[in-house]
Amino acid sequence: MELALTMAEATTGQTSPNPSVGAVVVKDGVLLGVGTHLKAGEPHAEVHAIAQAGEKAKGADIYVTLEPCAHYGKTPPCAELLVEKGIKKAYIASVDPNPKVAGKGVAILEAAGIEVEVGLYEERALQLNKHFFHFMNKKRPFITLKAAMTLDGKTATVTGDSKWITSAEARLDVHKERHKHDAILVGKGTVGADNPSLTTRLPQGGKNPIRIILDTKLSLQEEFAIYDKEATTWVFCGNEADPITFQEKHPHIKVVQLKTEDIQLEDVMNELAQNKIQSLYVEGGGTIHQAFLRENLVDECHWYIAPKLLGGQDARSVIAGNSPHWMEDAKELTFIDFEKLGPDLKIIAKPKGGF
Amino acid sequence: MELALTMAEATTGQTSPNPSVGAVVVKDGVLLGVGTHLKAGEPHAEVHAIAQAGEKAKGADIYVTLEPCAHYGKTPPCAELLVEKGIKKAYIASVDPNPKVAGKGVAILEAAGIEVEVGLYEERALQLNKHFFHFMNKKRPFITLKAAMTLDGKTATVTGDSKWITSAEARLDVHKERHKHDAILVGKGTVGADNPSLTTRLPQGGKNPIRIILDTKLSLQEEFAIYDKEATTWVFCGNEADPITFQEKHPHIKVVQLKTEDIQLEDVMNELAQNKIQSLYVEGGGTIHQAFLRENLVDECHWYIAPKLLGGQDARSVIAGNSPHWMEDAKELTFIDFEKLGPDLKIIAKPKGGF
Repeated sequence: MELALTMAEATTGQTSPNPSVGAVVVKDGVLLGVGTHLKAGEPHAEVHAIAQAGEKAKGADIYVTLEPCAHYGKTPPCAELLVEKGIKKAYIASVDPNPKVAGKGVAILEAAGIEVEVGLYEERALQLNKHFFHFMNKKRPFITLKAAMTLDGKTATVTGDSKWITSAEARLDVHKERHKHDAILVGKGTVGADNPSLTTRLPQGGKNPIRIILDTKLSLQEEFAIYDKEATTWVFCGNEADPITFQEKHPHIKVVQLKTEDIQLEDVMNELAQNKIQSLYVEGGGTIHQAFLRENLVDECHWYIAPKLLGGQDARSVIAGNSPHWMEDAKELTFIDFEKLGPDLKIIAKPKGGF
Repeated sequence: MELALTMAEATTGQTSPNPSVGAVVVKDGVLLGVGTHLKAGEPHAEVHAIAQAGEKAKGADIYVTLEPCAHYGKTPPCAELLVEKGIKKAYIASVDPNPKVAGKGVAILEAAGIEVEVGLYEERALQLNKHFFHFMNKKRPFITLKAAMTLDGKTATVTGDSKWITSAEARLDVHKERHKHDAILVGKGTVGADNPSLTTRLPQGGKNPIRIILDTKLSLQEEFAIYDKEATTWVFCGNEADPITFQEKHPHIKVVQLKTEDIQLEDVMNELAQNKIQSLYVEGGGTIHQAFLRENLVDECHWYIAPKLLGGQDARSVIAGNSPHWMEDAKELTFIDFEKLGPDLKIIAKPKGGF
């Protein structure tokens, strides 16, 4: 199962909207076949592994990180393939949260007399597909709030200068995270101030997430890097904006005009969910961060802290807006993990008990 | 040597202005005596260990964490004791930076034919007495800047509410640090807002550092907790303050009136150095932190980060004052260590290349 998980983890980011899955076929301690799902529309992990095992699959065991599917989608159901090929026992790390599958795969296997054991390395399997599982359960994208700040909580000086806070190592990690997410979101302030391209720039390439800008009045009309054709870009605006003028200038950008004057994050999330965007990487700035926190739309925080002290009440704080009156109104998190990235520290935190 | 260091580490905070030292006497693999220096004016570690070994010290080896002293102070020189008792070989973790000793102890031993080996576990020995070594070299206290903040760099809400940011575990660690320092410093703002007692409250008791307040105009005249008799308190003020009225109200408080209108931190450090205060724990608030950073008077930063996001540009930032115009003017640090304390994170950082 460890091998199956390791293979699946290597595909994180490339299988969406499908989950990452790995499968290994073994008989009498001998490895007969390995497989991993590579891309939506292509064969599932079990299909690859069983094909590799060939006739030897009969009487063999299979280790698969996710419950085999039971429905006819773009590919035939894997559970039936396991039955057909004579698999003896199936070890499954985690059942499928997809209501189309949800225990049905296990039921098919058991009805055919295949022994099934569920739960081996379950936690790692859930972590692997946390975006997918979250989307299936909550019907909205898994939202990761990303911030890069100095040790005193600042993202820019009083003049707005912010280059660079963190190291090349931390910035590389941000590109790895972009690769793992379906979409990336920034406010118009960040586009105007930093003119980021928000593409995934890894030494070995990488998948570009859909770039999403919240720009209530469509005030960013000029040529910004984010409007290039390197990746898909969507702009959300309110009902008083003028999409026609904007679209004339930027015909390849998708404009989503909401029905309200201000942008409601809930409406943005609904639009993303309808487009099967399972994971959203929110890169700020401070006003956007505050809005997501206020609406309790945060599933994980990725905080990159540089070993620097900027100083100054007037330097830009990582979360903008107005302070609550009482400390007890602070949003409570739980620190999950720490990682040193070059000179910097990455902290992963989750809302305590869910926001 | 590990045992000698472990014993010495257990005395951190109680030997000032002397360093913490441990000694172990061994012959043919058998432990003959252990000792550690307990308090200034009392016998040194070597004296205890050799006394315990008695006649068997002849021909034995000694492991000592710091070079044996060569001068007549409150106790006779330990180097001569080692010669007199017939020690065969001395393992020394670190030489003494005190100019009165500095290699003279080793010279006495070698002149008497004792084999000497210096440098075993040297880094740990230097860390153990970092306050002492720093004071001997720089002639000013080792300065630790301590801050407790939310993950977004805030120490209080817009209304000033700050209780509590960190957990009981993190606050316990602060009391351990107080015990290790000779003096603790706060600005008048912190006294006025939080009315802290700044004593060391550990389950097993603890040493109270001297409490130091910077109050330019001696504006804090009322009864604050810090003016109680639990610990010694010094107040620094400028030349326009009125110490007489203050002293009438608080006769047991030492007032140090400086010759300038504003308090210059350099003058404060000189006064502390003259009083053999080797270590200073700066507990803020934000204005004090900014002043120490601006004057490059920081040797170590202890940052306690609570898993909370307060939000708000107007919430109190951990470093107050005005932001520099450019990010490159931020003070650069190096992260040294991370420790999880209950739900919180403690980060230890040092100025990069010294401020």
